[in-house]
Amino acid sequence: MTDIAQIEAAAARLHGHARVTPLLNAPLLDAAAGRRIFVKAECLQLTGSFKFRGGWSAISALDPATRGKGVMAYSSGNHAQGVALAAQAHGIPAVILMPSDAPQVKIANTRAYGAEVILYDRATEDRDAIGARLTAERGLTLIKPFDDAQVIAGQGTTGMEIAAQAAALGITGATVITCCGGGGLTAGIALALQARAPGFTVRPAEPEGFDDAARSLASGRIERNARMAGSLCDAILTPQPGEITFPILSRLCGPGLTASDDEALHAMALAFTHLRIVLEPGGAIALAAALFRDDLPDTVIVTASGGNVDPATFRMALDRHAT
Amino acid sequence: MTDIAQIEAAAARLHGHARVTPLLNAPLLDAAAGRRIFVKAECLQLTGSFKFRGGWSAISALDPATRGKGVMAYSSGNHAQGVALAAQAHGIPAVILMPSDAPQVKIANTRAYGAEVILYDRATEDRDAIGARLTAERGLTLIKPFDDAQVIAGQGTTGMEIAAQAAALGITGATVITCCGGGGLTAGIALALQARAPGFTVRPAEPEGFDDAARSLASGRIERNARMAGSLCDAILTPQPGEITFPILSRLCGPGLTASDDEALHAMALAFTHLRIVLEPGGAIALAAALFRDDLPDTVIVTASGGNVDPATFRMALDRHAT
Repeated sequence: MTDIAQIEAAAARLHGHARVTPLLNAPLLDAAAGRRIFVKAECLQLTGSFKFRGGWSAISALDPATRGKGVMAYSSGNHAQGVALAAQAHGIPAVILMPSDAPQVKIANTRAYGAEVILYDRATEDRDAIGARLTAERGLTLIKPFDDAQVIAGQGTTGMEIAAQAAALGITGATVITCCGGGGLTAGIALALQARAPGFTVRPAEPEGFDDAARSLASGRIERNARMAGSLCDAILTPQPGEITFPILSRLCGPGLTASDDEALHAMALAFTHLRIVLEPGGAIALAAALFRDDLPDTVIVTASGGNVDPATFRMALDRHAT
Repeated sequence: MTDIAQIEAAAARLHGHARVTPLLNAPLLDAAAGRRIFVKAECLQLTGSFKFRGGWSAISALDPATRGKGVMAYSSGNHAQGVALAAQAHGIPAVILMPSDAPQVKIANTRAYGAEVILYDRATEDRDAIGARLTAERGLTLIKPFDDAQVIAGQGTTGMEIAAQAAALGITGATVITCCGGGGLTAGIALALQARAPGFTVRPAEPEGFDDAARSLASGRIERNARMAGSLCDAILTPQPGEITFPILSRLCGPGLTASDDEALHAMALAFTHLRIVLEPGGAIALAAALFRDDLPDTVIVTASGGNVDPATFRMALDRHAT
């Protein structure tokens, strides 16, 4: 079970390697929202999302002999890039298994971070079987995207930074809204804030129709999403909360929030105008909840968890919502 | 004459009010450039540009009785917003004189920061006469955009941060490229780095065809631009270097650099993709020079000095250059 000591140890390993991202705010954004919103800009993290923290934490925690054989990840998105760059910086091999229909730019970026990308056919091939064979043959260590104690500890360093940055601003109580997929970031932040800012409440935000965490928190057991496609927020679509993350969420988090795809696009446009940061839809869902949901306090902190967005989707946000 | 002591004093006054902006980098941006580029992201400063620093510095340096009567600025852009928010935070009136054909969004934003906006007709009215009358009637203090010692000192705090952030990254020598209009930011950074990072060279970057600073540095005397319109980089178009700023540039800066509007748009697109920040064309000109000019060392630091861009211009950058 991840605890604050593991998060502190991860922070020590990340020091000088991951970026301490700024906590941004803007008076005109607050005016638009009707409340004070502070934005933890993880889109400015290396590789463009918080996933680099978890990747670095997990890789740096391996014993050197194991680490030297290399790591593997299954991902077509932010986790792939985070693991690839963390492995490259450690000077070890990374193998990333990606579906052959993944966007070319994501494949190219992952390769540009030095990873060996192995493509598989979603329709005819078994990803887990390919992964198991490769890890066995090459002695690779699988870095899971969220259900791993050291990954959660790495994401939790975001929460340590939020606590310190909020304290420097004199913020003693706030609701912290997280962009929630499998729950690694949410669990890590909740653990860090429990120790470092116990007056804060953590609430996960998810896309409408893909609110497995919210429903799981409400029912007290792990609930699944009915489907896995049909949202712009692809970065945070997961079948269900993790076996390790859910008990942490259940113990520490307030009720889940949701926002629509169009609200996420609107949040992206407001972040463009008032904060001058680039968000992807899944990375804007917490900001969307802070902007458009009602049952929130005067001071809200949100994670802007990723900014790897294709130009067409970004244009859609500007076309619909930027003035 | 501004010196490091004035910059240090400005830094003390700005502490806790202006944001310490991050120095960003991205492996894939470096790969595109063929050199290491670090980006001082002043687009993330309050009001979206470094101008807030100079506005705050000048206003906070006034004696309280003078300050209480209020301040005035002539500007339709970033200086207007920087002065307006700095005045609002000090609880004093701000009057901003803007041409009546300024974009509505800039007028609205300046008003949203609490300023009284007074519009004048560029064709028929004399801005300086209106300004002189208002300052006399109301006892306002004019905050100049660049040719003022306290404004330069405020912009120079950017240079102090660059020196500290570069040292933390182990960078001992670099060329620092600044987005240069009237030269306030360039002069302030050059003074700060002379004291804090004497191994660094400062070079101003300007739009092609509006390279008054480059030509002035080459000839050793103040040269004017032939025209004042026809560039996307409106934020940094000035008739000539300042009477106060030019002697500092002449003493401390290396040769000027230029980049085209299309190169600025290309730099905006690369900043979108690899750094996830929003830049305006004038705020991207230093990055464009770092990307597309040849006579530069392996490590370059650039100012990304502003991010107040209209959606149509940003779309143009994405349409032409984002993949």
